[in-house]
Parts: sequence; C-alpha cells; structure tokens
Amino acid sequence: MRPSGRQNDDTRAITIQRQFTKHAEGSVLVSFGDTKVICTATIEAGVPRFLRGEDQGWLTAEYSMLPRSTNTRNQREAARGKQGGRTVEIQRLIGRALRAAVDMKKMPNVSITLDCDVIQADGGTRTASISGAYVALADAIAFGMAKGLLKKNPLMHKVAAISVGMVGGVPVLDLDYIEDSKADTDMNIVMTSAGGFVEVQGTAEAEPFTGSQFAEMLKLAEVGCRHIFDVQEAALNS
Amino acid sequence: MRPSGRQNDDTRAITIQRQFTKHAEGSVLVSFGDTKVICTATIEAGVPRFLRGEDQGWLTAEYSMLPRSTNTRNQREAARGKQGGRTVEIQRLIGRALRAAVDMKKMPNVSITLDCDVIQADGGTRTASISGAYVALADAIAFGMAKGLLKKNPLMHKVAAISVGMVGGVPVLDLDYIEDSKADTDMNIVMTSAGGFVEVQGTAEAEPFTGSQFAEMLKLAEVGCRHIFDVQEAALNS
Amino acid sequence: MRPSGRQNDDTRAITIQRQFTKHAEGSVLVSFGDTKVICTATIEAGVPRFLRGEDQGWLTAEYSMLPRSTNTRNQREAARGKQGGRTVEIQRLIGRALRAAVDMKKMPNVSITLDCDVIQADGGTRTASISGAYVALADAIAFGMAKGLLKKNPLMHKVAAISVGMVGGVPVLDLDYIEDSKADTDMNIVMTSAGGFVEVQGTAEAEPFTGSQFAEMLKLAEVGCRHIFDVQEAALNS
Amino acid sequence: MRPSGRQNDDTRAITIQRQFTKHAEGSVLVSFGDTKVICTATIEAGVPRFLRGEDQGWLTAEYSMLPRSTNTRNQREAARGKQGGRTVEIQRLIGRALRAAVDMKKMPNVSITLDCDVIQADGGTRTASISGAYVALADAIAFGMAKGLLKKNPLMHKVAAISVGMVGGVPVLDLDYIEDSKADTDMNIVMTSAGGFVEVQGTAEAEPFTGSQFAEMLKLAEVGCRHIFDVQEAALNS
Amino acid sequence: MRPSGRQNDDTRAITIQRQFTKHAEGSVLVSFGDTKVICTATIEAGVPRFLRGEDQGWLTAEYSMLPRSTNTRNQREAARGKQGGRTVEIQRLIGRALRAAVDMKKMPNVSITLDCDVIQADGGTRTASISGAYVALADAIAFGMAKGLLKKNPLMHKVAAISVGMVGGVPVLDLDYIEDSKADTDMNIVMTSAGGFVEVQGTAEAEPFTGSQFAEMLKLAEVGCRHIFDVQEAALNS
Amino acid sequence: MRPSGRQNDDTRAITIQRQFTKHAEGSVLVSFGDTKVICTATIEAGVPRFLRGEDQGWLTAEYSMLPRSTNTRNQREAARGKQGGRTVEIQRLIGRALRAAVDMKKMPNVSITLDCDVIQADGGTRTASISGAYVALADAIAFGMAKGLLKKNPLMHKVAAISVGMVGGVPVLDLDYIEDSKADTDMNIVMTSAGGFVEVQGTAEAEPFTGSQFAEMLKLAEVGCRHIFDVQEAALNS
Repeated sequence: MRPSGRQNDDTRAITIQRQFTKHAEGSVLVSFGDTKVICTATIEAGVPRFLRGEDQGWLTAEYSMLPRSTNTRNQREAARGKQGGRTVEIQRLIGRALRAAVDMKKMPNVSITLDCDVIQADGGTRTASISGAYVALADAIAFGMAKGLLKKNPLMHKVAAISVGMVGGVPVLDLDYIEDSKADTDMNIVMTSAGGFVEVQGTAEAEPFTGSQFAEMLKLAEVGCRHIFDVQEAALNS
Repeated sequence: MRPSGRQNDDTRAITIQRQFTKHAEGSVLVSFGDTKVICTATIEAGVPRFLRGEDQGWLTAEYSMLPRSTNTRNQREAARGKQGGRTVEIQRLIGRALRAAVDMKKMPNVSITLDCDVIQADGGTRTASISGAYVALADAIAFGMAKGLLKKNPLMHKVAAISVGMVGGVPVLDLDYIEDSKADTDMNIVMTSAGGFVEVQGTAEAEPFTGSQFAEMLKLAEVGCRHIFDVQEAALNS
Repeated sequence: MRPSGRQNDDTRAITIQRQFTKHAEGSVLVSFGDTKVICTATIEAGVPRFLRGEDQGWLTAEYSMLPRSTNTRNQREAARGKQGGRTVEIQRLIGRALRAAVDMKKMPNVSITLDCDVIQADGGTRTASISGAYVALADAIAFGMAKGLLKKNPLMHKVAAISVGMVGGVPVLDLDYIEDSKADTDMNIVMTSAGGFVEVQGTAEAEPFTGSQFAEMLKLAEVGCRHIFDVQEAALNS
Repeated sequence: MRPSGRQNDDTRAITIQRQFTKHAEGSVLVSFGDTKVICTATIEAGVPRFLRGEDQGWLTAEYSMLPRSTNTRNQREAARGKQGGRTVEIQRLIGRALRAAVDMKKMPNVSITLDCDVIQADGGTRTASISGAYVALADAIAFGMAKGLLKKNPLMHKVAAISVGMVGGVPVLDLDYIEDSKADTDMNIVMTSAGGFVEVQGTAEAEPFTGSQFAEMLKLAEVGCRHIFDVQEAALNS
Repeated sequence: MRPSGRQNDDTRAITIQRQFTKHAEGSVLVSFGDTKVICTATIEAGVPRFLRGEDQGWLTAEYSMLPRSTNTRNQREAARGKQGGRTVEIQRLIGRALRAAVDMKKMPNVSITLDCDVIQADGGTRTASISGAYVALADAIAFGMAKGLLKKNPLMHKVAAISVGMVGGVPVLDLDYIEDSKADTDMNIVMTSAGGFVEVQGTAEAEPFTGSQFAEMLKLAEVGCRHIFDVQEAALNS
Repeated sequence: MRPSGRQNDDTRAITIQRQFTKHAEGSVLVSFGDTKVICTATIEAGVPRFLRGEDQGWLTAEYSMLPRSTNTRNQREAARGKQGGRTVEIQRLIGRALRAAVDMKKMPNVSITLDCDVIQADGGTRTASISGAYVALADAIAFGMAKGLLKKNPLMHKVAAISVGMVGGVPVLDLDYIEDSKADTDMNIVMTSAGGFVEVQGTAEAEPFTGSQFAEMLKLAEVGCRHIFDVQEAALNS
C-alpha cells in the first residue's frame, strides 16, 4: 500500500489552470497533487547569436524553486549569485523535452522562453514543469499565430512527463516526496502524444535495476503520460 | 478622473489569503488589484554571525519578481548571477519596514526571513510585499510561540505600506502601473498601527514637490494604511 | 547640546574644492566636517543600449567607500566580487538626485558618469556625495559646452542634499556619525535651488515619527540646502 | 556500415593507463578511441559540512574540457567565471555513477574527489570519464587502506559506462563524434559489474524511440560494459 | 632631453604626507609627481585560516584605481564584479615587497592590510604605492606596539620602489606616463634600506635588453631608492 | 650538491612532443623533468574589440593547473568562479613573453590563443609553459600560412624561459619544487634567440640579492635558454 493510498498505477490529482497570470503569452498553474508550478511562455522575435542567419527558431527553459517551496528554506539562487547544479540539470531537461514538441524550422527568427517556477514542492517538480509548460507553450504559439509572428504552426504533438520508481521491488507511478526519498530507483520519462519516448533519465538510488524492471517502468510511464495528455487537451479546450 | 475610475483616496481591492503554500511557517498571497505577491515567513533558531553573542534576534527580507510577472520578460537574476539594483533597494526597504514591527530583544537567537516573490506586477509591488509580509510574519511568530522557539511575543504592532503620488497636481492613493508611469511624484510610505511613520521614500520623477504637497500625501497614505490594517486584522482573524 | 557643540540648525563646515584631480572633466573634494568624498564627473559621447535611438542623454552615478574610510576596515567590494546592498541603494539615490538637475533632452547622445569615492567617513556620505557631485557635474557640462559635445546647456538648477534627524525628540541638522547612531529618525533630503524637494528618504530607527515632526525636519533641511547652494555657488565662482 | 568501419556492437579501442601523473592517489589516462581523459582520485580525511556527525563518507566528481580539446576553442570556464550547464550536468552524472561503486558507510570521515579533465574529445567523454574514474577510485581506495585512512574496503563492485544510439534505425555501440551528431537517439548507460543498471539517460535528438528499441539498446550497452570491466580488471592487475 | 625636462637620474618630486585620513592606524598620501596614491595600513588581531596555529603573523595588500584616476574612465571593478589582471598582478607585487620589510615571526597572531588606492595616475602607481605603503606600515606598527598588540617590533628595514626604463637607448629614472608609453623597457625595482634587491620586474616592450643595460638600470634604481629612503625618513620624523 | 644530483648549470631533462592532441593548430606536451604542461595554440580570424580597425593582430595566453597536478588538491578555479591571483599573474607573463616572438603588424585581423594546462607540477610551470608554447605557436603560424590566413610570417625569433635561483648563496639553474621552496631568490627569465632579455622577474624570498648576484643569475639563465632553443629547434625539425 502506498503512503498516499493510491494504486501503483495511479497518478496524483493532476490539474492545469490556464491564464494564471496576465502578462505572459502563455501562463498556467500546474498541480501534481501538492506540487505546484507556475509555467509561463514568452514568445518574441529574434534568436540568440549562435542561430543568427540560420533559418530556424529557438526554445529554451529556465527553472527555479521559491526559497520556501520546500520544507526547509533553500538559499535564494539570485542572492547566492549562481544557479545550483540541480537547477541547471532540470532546466536543461525541460528545454530538451519541449524542443521535441516543436519544429524549429517552422518558427524562423522566433524565440520562446519557458519559465517554470515551483511555488510548492512535493516530489515530481520537473515532470510537472514539463507537463504544464506544454500548455503554456501551446497558448504562446496560438498567440504568435494570431499576431502574425508565426506564419506556420510549429507545434507537432503534445509532450508530457511523469516519474516512475521501484519502491519495495514494485514499480509505482508519480512518486510524491515521501515515496521518492525511499525509492530504489527514480526515473523521469518524457513522451510525445504521437507515441515514443523523447527523454528517459533513470537513477538507481539504492539497488541497480534490471532490464525487465526497466520495461515495466516504461509501461507504467506510458499510462501516466496518456492521462496527462487528456488533462492537457481538456485544459486547452476549456 | 483616474484611469481605473477610482476616487483619489481609494485603494485598489486589497486581499490577503493565508496558508497559500504549505511548507512555510507563514505564507500569504497578497493582492493589491492586479499586483500579486507570495510572501512567506521562515522562523529558525540561530542568528547571523554579526549578532552572535548579542542577546537579540534578527529579521531580514528578500524580494524577487518572476521573469514574466511584467509586461515584457526580465532576465532571471539567478541566471544573470546577481540581483539588480532595484531588487536590492526594495528588499532592504522591506527588511527595515518589518523590523519596525518586532522587538528584537524578545526573540533571542531566532531569525526570521521574509521572502516576497512577485508573480504578477501592476505597480506597488513593494507596498504589497510589506503589507502581506506582515501577516506572514504574524503567523510565523505564532508558530514560534506554539513551538517554544519564542518565549515572549516580539510582535509590537502592525506594519502596512501604501504608495501615494502627485498626478496632474493632485495627490492620489495606491497608484497602479499606468498612473505610476505618469506621476510627478512617487512616494512609498510605511506606517505602524500604533501611529507614526516608519519609512517615507519620495521621489520627484518630474516636478519637485513642496512641503504642503508632502503633508497632503502623508494624510492620504494614512487613510490607505488604516484600510490595510483592517484587511490584515480580518485575515488574521479568519 | 549636540556632541559637536553645534546648534540644532547648524551644518558642519562644508567645503568644496574644485579641480582636485587632473584627468576628470569635473573633479571635486567635498567635505562635510570629517566626511570627505572625491566626486568626479566624466562626460562622453554615446548612450547606453536602452536609450539608443531616443533623442536624449543619460546620467548615472557610482558610489564606493575606501576600505579604511571607516573606523574598522570594510572588505573591498572589488575583491569580494560584488557591491553591497547599501552601496547599491546609495548610488541609485545619487543618480536620481543629479538627474533632477539636468534636462536629458538637451544632451542628446551624451552620457555623464558621476563617481563618488568616500575617502573618510563620519556620517552623511550620501548627502556630501550629492552636494559635491553637483559641482563636478557643472564643471563637466561647462567642458562639454566648450568642446561642442553639448549644443545647449542641460543644467536646470542646483541640487543639494542634507540629512536631518530626530535626536532626543528634537530635530537636528547634518548629523555626524555619533549623532546618527543614536538618532530616532534619520532622513536624507534632496532639494533643487529652484525650490521643492526631489527626494526624501526617512527611516525611523527607533520611534516612528509624526506628520508634524516630518514638517519640522523638512524646514530644517531647507535651511541646510540653502547654505549648500551658497557653498556650491562660491566654489563655481572661484 | 559505420563511418569508423566498426561493427554495430564494437566499441572503439578502450585503454586505461594507470599512474599517469605522480601526485594523485589514483591517476589514469583513459582512451575511448580518440577521446582521452585524465581521471584523478584524491582521498582525504574529512567530509563536507552537510555530512558532519553522520557516520559516513563522501564522494564527488568534477569534469572539465581543456579549451582546445574540441575542434574549435571553447571559452575557459575559469576565465568566464562559471561552469556551463553541460559541465554541471555531466559532473553530477559522474558523481552519482561512482557513488554506486562504494558503500559510504564503510568510509566514515573520508572524502574522495574524482577529477575528469578531457584533453581530447571525440564523443563519449562522459562515459570514458566514468569508466576511467573507476580505476583511479580503486587505486585511491587501495592507498587509503594502506595508509589506515580506511578501516574497511568500501568498494562494492566495478562501475562502467558506455553510449549507445539509434543511427539510421539501428542500435550502435560507443558512438564517436561523427555518429553522435547524426544519431536519432543518444543514450548513456552506467552499469555495475554485479549486474544491473545504475543510470540510464536517453535523449531522442530527432525521432522518439520505442520501448523495444530501448530494450535493444540496453542489451548492446551490456555488451560494451562487460568489455570495459575486462579492461578495468586488466589495468588493475598490471 | 626628457619630456619633463628632468635629468636621466632625477626622480619626480616625491612627497609623503602622513595622517592623511583619520581612521586608519597608518594613512599617507604619497605623490610621485602627478601620481597620487592613498596608502592606509590596518593592523588587527587574528590571522587568515591557512596560518592558524603557525607562530607568525601576516601582511597583505590590495590595490585599486579610482575609475577616473586616468585620462579616460575605467569601469569600476566592484561594479564589474571582478578585479582585472593588472590589478591582481600589482597588488601581489605590493604585498611581496612589504612582506620583505617585516619579520613575520615577531608579529604572532597579527594581520596587517595595506590598501593602496590611486586617486590620480601618471605612471609609476605601483612604485609610489610600495614607497608610500612603507610609511603607513611603520605608523601602524608603532600603533600596534603602543597598544600592546605587538610585543616586539617586526620592522626590519625600509622598503622603497622605483621604475627605470630604456628610452631611446638610454636608462632613465622614474618614468611618467608619457615616457612609459614610449619606453623600450619598463622595469620596476624594489630595494631595502639594508641594501639589496627584493623584487625586480623588467619587461621589454619593444627591443629586448642586454645584461649590461640591466646593470645600468639597477644602478639608477639604487639612486632613486636612496632618495626615497630619505623622503620616508623625513616623513616619519616630522 | 643539488637534491637532484644536477650541476648548478644543468637544466632538468627538457623534452617537447609535438602533435600531442589532434584538434589544435599547434599542440605540444612539454616536460621540464617532472613538470608537464600541455600547450595548445589556436589561430583564428578576428581580433578583440579594442583592436578593431587597427592594422594588426593579437596574441593572448591562458594558464591553468589541473586540480591534482600538485601534491595536495587545489580547488578547481571554474568551480570556485574565479581565477586565482597566481594564475592571473602567470598567464599575463606568458602572453607578454610570446608577444615578443611575433610581429603583430604582420598578422592583421588574426588572433592566436595559447592555452597552457599543467597536468603535473614540480616547479617551473611558467617557464615550461613559455618554452613549450613557443613550439605550439610556431606550428599554428605554419598552419595559418598554409591556409592563407596569414600572408606574411609574423614569427621573428624563438622565445624561451628558465628559472634561476640563489640556493645557499650559489646560483643554480632550473629549480625543481624542492629547491624552489628553499631558495633565497627565485627568478624567471625570458629570452629571445636573437639575444637579449624580454622579461625578468626576480623575487627575494629570504635574503635580498645584490647586483653582482643578479649578473651571475642572468648568465646562468642564458645557458639554460640556449639549451631550450636547441630543444625547440630539434622538435620543430622532427
């Protein structure tokens, strides 16, 4: 039995609220249970220097946790003067995941920035960030199409992410903080709605995992991502 | 007539929602119209090095704006590697304002950190931060009393802040972004519920102001702060 | 009786020595009693990026204290790798104050930088900096006019600053370090010679202050600034 | 046919030269074809602050590329003043991988630092770093045992890493730079000699990958890691 | 004929004014012609971490130029967030030079910091800094002896520095900025009053120099240093 | 007798291996006994901003030590976020020394960067860096000539560097770490193959040195540099 009383293949309650703040072209509050992240998407003309003259656009992501989004206070990275290693690792993952959702060739001279700011953390902040950022991205792209910044729609398919883990020898879906801290393996998986994996990151915290455990975890992740695609679709249709 | 249709001595709708996030000892979402700030208070044993051996506690504040809390995206300070001058100036003001609410001698070896993170900005983010942070502070102090971290209650009185400005030669209360950008003078005023000013910062953006205009603005600020004290009281009693 | 033996409305001996160093277009040594600051003004063609294409100029200020300008040594900010919060707050104040002295529209594509370096501190370094920087600014503008960098004179009026405080319930003018450390209220006031306040920053260190105390302090500040305008005038005529 | 003429399940020539430099307790030059990395291990008494009082040791890793280890020169991170995101991501991976090789409980109050400095890059620098760092680690632990710094041997099993990728729809082993830049999927896999995966990081650069492709890639990785365990064993026995 | 009209073995007017600022234990204004540097010496109990437990003291130096000490404005290093290479090089030289004046063993648990801040530059700022810092150091040591911080006098002999150069094939003493910028060789030499060189740094800017030119330059430097020892002595006796 | 058994005018075994790594236009491994440095030269079109429009090229150098190139581990400068003072001092020396080998006027719009990375340190890392960097520079210039990036050969003569010191009152050549740590004087000397000194940096660590000791040390350095010119020549001809 899981601490939360959930079945092994249950996600937490996942909700995505659009137009959460008013200035960004896309802005959502995504919740995976008690994990809550504000994801905004900014769309602008121009590309970074290394892409000048290339016939494509760019998409990047930044991630941060409010100092008191966690149980004890973390030093504010802006005050400390640098982003921590975990932050850097996560924001690179978010960027790669969402770049898989768009065709850069269809957004020449356009940049999109996704900001994921965790206001409350309870495990799975990176998967919530990716899943929520997709909806903010879709809104920003719709804005860009409406304003004529984009001539073609660069969105190819949905992207969602979920965590899976081995806890007590059994694969479980969407770990909260309590489960995460005692899992043998912690895996974050990103999928597209067209099918297929775009990113898999698995770490054995205690016992190494086998190929067959791996296969089980992938299947469970697919169940979770299918559910998130439905939540994203519902949010975008509301 | 003001752009918002408000009377000159009207504030915007001011609301304070407690227990906004779950981990901090005090956590509120404060809104001054479309300006929205998450204020959390962290209370901990220990004091910074420069106070070791002194028989008192410490209180400090940090301020930040989410990159897309504003109309165009600001570079993330953590990514840039330093806090901007405006951020530093504001967080020092917040710290001084809230230190006026507590008797440091009554909180030996205890530190309180107030984090004010603006999620949506429409003028008056520093006054909203101070007014909201007071409620988070009160909750954290109650927590500290209940847990025995504090033996005596260091809270002396409420603290609130509001902006006033001269617009078209007339003093107006609680400027939103549109008014702020065309005001001749922009003044931020911090008061205590015991009466009296604890901080006054006035800047003539265009025309210098006179002593009598100053007096008028102080009176208007007092009206605004009285209203905020009521909102704080109601929030703490709910 | 004040520690220095001064009357409540007396400033310290205020002197401004022009051409203190030889390279800058404006260079003064300003003394407010034992507080001594080197203020230089640099005038150059060009404006910062955010003003390109705008038909105006720019003026900015930087402030620093020599490590041993104070009673105990402060860590050198260049060695530490960042400017402290107090430094940032003060240099922003100096910049705003002196921008009130010039009409930016009359100095298209011209930048002026004011450097205020405190070599000896005894209270009131920011007010001495502003009052001295005005003279350096006037010299740099005269240089710019003579060299044809400026077509019109952007200088509108003098700017001076002085501190006032409530000490033992009584308002006093131009506090030195000893008085400053025991004042209930510390206020820094910037005025123009055309009349009117351009910046007021008051902080209640201990007891909050009332509206009528505020009015008294403003009057005292006006006495002080009138005296400084005379000292500036005399320096510029010498 | 692969550009290098290798079979799909062939690694490049993998060699590990011990005692490459003379000061470190463990020092190797590891080559995966033209990718060459100096891995050193430093063993010291003491643990970082966050582990004080815990009855365990610590192991961490740092990674860097010489500016001209690549085809065009990269800015030196020390000169730039910060480590890039890719560097941070890789050194965190190396640290997690090698922590899986040791039982921290058996090395109380002992810290080990693994430095991986790439002197020539041709794809697979992170997998070469992990595979070489294991041998440096084993030498440092032997040194620690001989000197009495360690009472028990904390080494549990070997750790090796290899990359696999989907190129033209076919899984291939140990990609060099040319293959890497045109692969659909790039995956880095870390295994222990006891069997089982400790880290899997797969990214679909172009086409998402399926569960069965994943299974194929894992099998190929196992072939590669078995070979590396033999190379490590031979090096340690020489 | 030199631009200044000086003979080849003439220094500029060298003056050292003690007690230039009031807070530091040693404080001088040193002038080498138009080069003017404020040198302060701070003496304190305590040593840096790397000397704890060693039975000796420490002496270090920091150097800076005010942004407008030069003909065009240099960016302020504190604002830029790091000290430039030239600054670092010079302050290391100053520290080494003055450490040659004291016996560290005679100042256990005492630290001395020398701050050299150039307020006006016209060539030779590092030699002026060293020569002036010696007098500030002597005053700080006298202070430390009087206060009982020092039991024995650690001062061994005077230290002075001067520049020499090859200009048009001829060795000249104490180059000003104009000469410095066209010299073939620029050499900075530090001597003790007991005789002997403690630091020699020579750079051929254009033509390499020969051993015999070297010998000539050393002789000239000795003339200059002898003169500075007299100036230092006179200042300390005044 | 020297610890190494060498004669006073003997260098250690000096070897220079070209084409040490494959990407750089020039790449050598230089050894002065147990001191080993990788020197690479990068040649590129373009010059830094301060040389735009000038009809010349540029050459600069960077220096670093691998964290475990020394007996105890040094903190990695990239992780620490800044280069240390010693590093800055040395890389400025290397840059000045090698600029003496080329005629910048003959390499318009071309930049050369020399990277010296110490993989094993045993005294004399800066002199080994300079001596090795010369060979890497020569290879990069040959590359630039072959590719048409350079129209004329900017190389004027060889540059080499060696250390000399006073140990027990006697001048000795090419000190290793053991000798260096007990030398009275440590001097680094850079010469050109055309004759003449381009850089001399001598520091009296203990006893000041005399003019005649200086002359002796220069003569010894000349012996050492002649030998290095031969080693460089042989390497370039191989």
